[in-house]
Amino acid sequence: MASIKPSVPRGTRDFSPTEMVKRNYIFDTIKSVFRKYGYQQIETPAMENLSTLMGKYGDEGDKLIFKILNSGDFLSKVDAQKLSAHNSQQIIADISEKALRYDLTVPFARYVVMHQNEITFPFKRFQVQPVWRADRPQKGRYREFYQCDADVVGSDSLLNEAEFVLIYDEALSNLGLKDFTIKINNRKILSGIAEVIDKPDQIIDLTVAIDKLDKIGLDGVIKELNEKGFTDTDISKLKPVILLEGSNEEKLASLRQALQNSAIGLKGCDEIESIFNYLKSFNLQKATVELDITLARGLNYYTGAIFEVKTNEVAMGSIGGGGRYDDLTGMFGLKGLTGAGISFGADRIYDVLEELKLFPDAAGQTTQVLICCFDNDGETYALPFLQELRSREIRSELYPAGSKMKKQLDYANAKQIPYVIVIGSDEMESGLLSFKNMLTGDQEKLSTEMIVAMLAEG
Amino acid sequence: MASIKPSVPRGTRDFSPTEMVKRNYIFDTIKSVFRKYGYQQIETPAMENLSTLMGKYGDEGDKLIFKILNSGDFLSKVDAQKLSAHNSQQIIADISEKALRYDLTVPFARYVVMHQNEITFPFKRFQVQPVWRADRPQKGRYREFYQCDADVVGSDSLLNEAEFVLIYDEALSNLGLKDFTIKINNRKILSGIAEVIDKPDQIIDLTVAIDKLDKIGLDGVIKELNEKGFTDTDISKLKPVILLEGSNEEKLASLRQALQNSAIGLKGCDEIESIFNYLKSFNLQKATVELDITLARGLNYYTGAIFEVKTNEVAMGSIGGGGRYDDLTGMFGLKGLTGAGISFGADRIYDVLEELKLFPDAAGQTTQVLICCFDNDGETYALPFLQELRSREIRSELYPAGSKMKKQLDYANAKQIPYVIVIGSDEMESGLLSFKNMLTGDQEKLSTEMIVAMLAEG
Repeated sequence: MASIKPSVPRGTRDFSPTEMVKRNYIFDTIKSVFRKYGYQQIETPAMENLSTLMGKYGDEGDKLIFKILNSGDFLSKVDAQKLSAHNSQQIIADISEKALRYDLTVPFARYVVMHQNEITFPFKRFQVQPVWRADRPQKGRYREFYQCDADVVGSDSLLNEAEFVLIYDEALSNLGLKDFTIKINNRKILSGIAEVIDKPDQIIDLTVAIDKLDKIGLDGVIKELNEKGFTDTDISKLKPVILLEGSNEEKLASLRQALQNSAIGLKGCDEIESIFNYLKSFNLQKATVELDITLARGLNYYTGAIFEVKTNEVAMGSIGGGGRYDDLTGMFGLKGLTGAGISFGADRIYDVLEELKLFPDAAGQTTQVLICCFDNDGETYALPFLQELRSREIRSELYPAGSKMKKQLDYANAKQIPYVIVIGSDEMESGLLSFKNMLTGDQEKLSTEMIVAMLAEG
Repeated sequence: MASIKPSVPRGTRDFSPTEMVKRNYIFDTIKSVFRKYGYQQIETPAMENLSTLMGKYGDEGDKLIFKILNSGDFLSKVDAQKLSAHNSQQIIADISEKALRYDLTVPFARYVVMHQNEITFPFKRFQVQPVWRADRPQKGRYREFYQCDADVVGSDSLLNEAEFVLIYDEALSNLGLKDFTIKINNRKILSGIAEVIDKPDQIIDLTVAIDKLDKIGLDGVIKELNEKGFTDTDISKLKPVILLEGSNEEKLASLRQALQNSAIGLKGCDEIESIFNYLKSFNLQKATVELDITLARGLNYYTGAIFEVKTNEVAMGSIGGGGRYDDLTGMFGLKGLTGAGISFGADRIYDVLEELKLFPDAAGQTTQVLICCFDNDGETYALPFLQELRSREIRSELYPAGSKMKKQLDYANAKQIPYVIVIGSDEMESGLLSFKNMLTGDQEKLSTEMIVAMLAEG
């Protein structure tokens, strides 16, 4: 059999050692912040029952779920007539009963319902696992990618929302970002605006138009709104919302004015204000918090706060987002459990850190020192020292004897190993080993004790 | 729609926070040893092209591979006549082009071939990811489970094998195991035995019979061998092998005698001896190394050393295994690249640590202190202190105001939070907060400075 040039499925990726060090750096940084705020890790299976996932993401989402073919004689359950209809969608349920998870939220809801008797609420969980979507792959969009989520269920306190702001601030600041904005909106404010002008279905048209104020000016926005069917009366009611500017407090005051006849709109203002009040007790590191009523993500499930995070240092889409949903577990029969959650966009954060050169060098994970020998005698001489280095928790390798020194040094360079020890006959005789700094090229002869001391220092 | 009681697919599992802490402990311990020995992490996609996986695990294995249904109108590629045949196996390739990885070894081989121009050999990689098998689920056997592998390719030095023994010894000792055996065999020795008696196909019958020596005695073993078709001449040649005992050196001497007419058998003895010689330069912590010629795992792919690890503290199958394979990447067209690898059985190690009560308490990851208040005033008072605790890297939570104190303390107990701070009106007035040790029940009033100092100490 001729061997085929191997490849990975479209939209999926291998991660090399260098990439893994960087990805681990991102995930470890975020996870340790999650833990600091009392979030606990869970994992759920890659495969869920198809019935758990279907119908949760809309018709488009259903199509993007990867289905797993039943094992064995999967056609045995399909009757001949049905099969002869040659209709793929009709037989899916007969030949597939499992699917790959599409996100971490629905599996989390399923988890909470299944484990409700072991869980003490409020339950604060985080989860970092891959998800799969049969989307058309393109730059920055993959069919397999990690999600990195923290959610709390069973607490309606707005302290949770305030702490999500702190978590974003701390995690992204720890990753080295210096200027980023956490945008906050509230679904109830959007509902209030819709109520005031009696156009609940056009909230997205409205927010899209308002969002263009900077680019096209007030007249442009009004023109666009007219085109979308908003009346002059609507627009006069909307003007304070369109022209919303100033500090968060000023924006909130204008909103309260505009929404004075909408109970739900005012409730949204109250919630935002409570979050801001909580935040007054805390110092933020690098984040700017901004009330932005054009933020309209997740309108079909968020019921309260809506978050989105953007870096101001490079052009990049959102690097995080989330919000509050009042009925996460209702789809699995557990009603009335409120929740809120946020997500970090790990792939985009990776690209941002790469562009800003914010990744620390790989020193934390790669080999610290390579021992090179010329022959078996050198190897035998080196072994006890190799073990001593490792017993001091120094990540060490011995290049197996018998290769040219150049090849051994190339290996050290390729692996970015910072120090090399060379053991030849002189070294064995004197007990002083050649110790080379691969970055500076400096080389000196040192006792094993001195080498251990230098490496142990870092 | 009536909601269905949610469940996970058979053979898959959720991991709760408590289980995750323990699993992370195992994986982190093993990973850090891998890194110390110069192994670097990679990750590969969960999905591979079906053609990458099929034919690599035998016919039985092919059936156990989870296939992913093509997206969209997957039946469009199947012609009507073929479909009407109602034969599942015939249409698999038409409706599925991707599958879930079955192990980490074939994806690694695919990775090495795809990335051969970026890799500096010898390439030492480790990988910790789930794999999926459509096996019948039973106790201890799952359809989704993590593998934890380290492999080196491009080096035939037996130092690699010796270092695998060190890795097992260090990782399992670090996990708290006190008595375990690393069994070593060599495929070439088994080939030599087969050569000596000219029965290459019956190596497994032979090793199975010899393995029973302790239980059924020499006569029993000879009887079983007779039944399996071994002649008296065979058995007289095999006797030194059957009666192999004593130290590893003594066993090796007997083997050399028995295999004196088999070049390959003697080569196997040389390889084992080299590994033992390397190990003389190192001190092992808790492992016993034992030459065991009844070890016959992976006979269809291992070509040199074979490893298996067993704990002697509890009854449990193998907790690790591996070996050398001379042609890992040949299946993808890259010939002549030798490799060797080992695997840790994470699920079994979990069960062993659980049974021996070797898991450290969760202290390393869970919340260290919970602040409890009676009302909003207490909450407002607490917020700056909450942030101060976190700025000292103390994992802290504030229970949102408005719940009964009992509920708050129950939360601390359920989450095994060791310390609780209670803030009532007395505390706010005096500035001395009630600080309670949840394990001992001791409670005292302390300044925030003293609390920070105590918690920072751990």
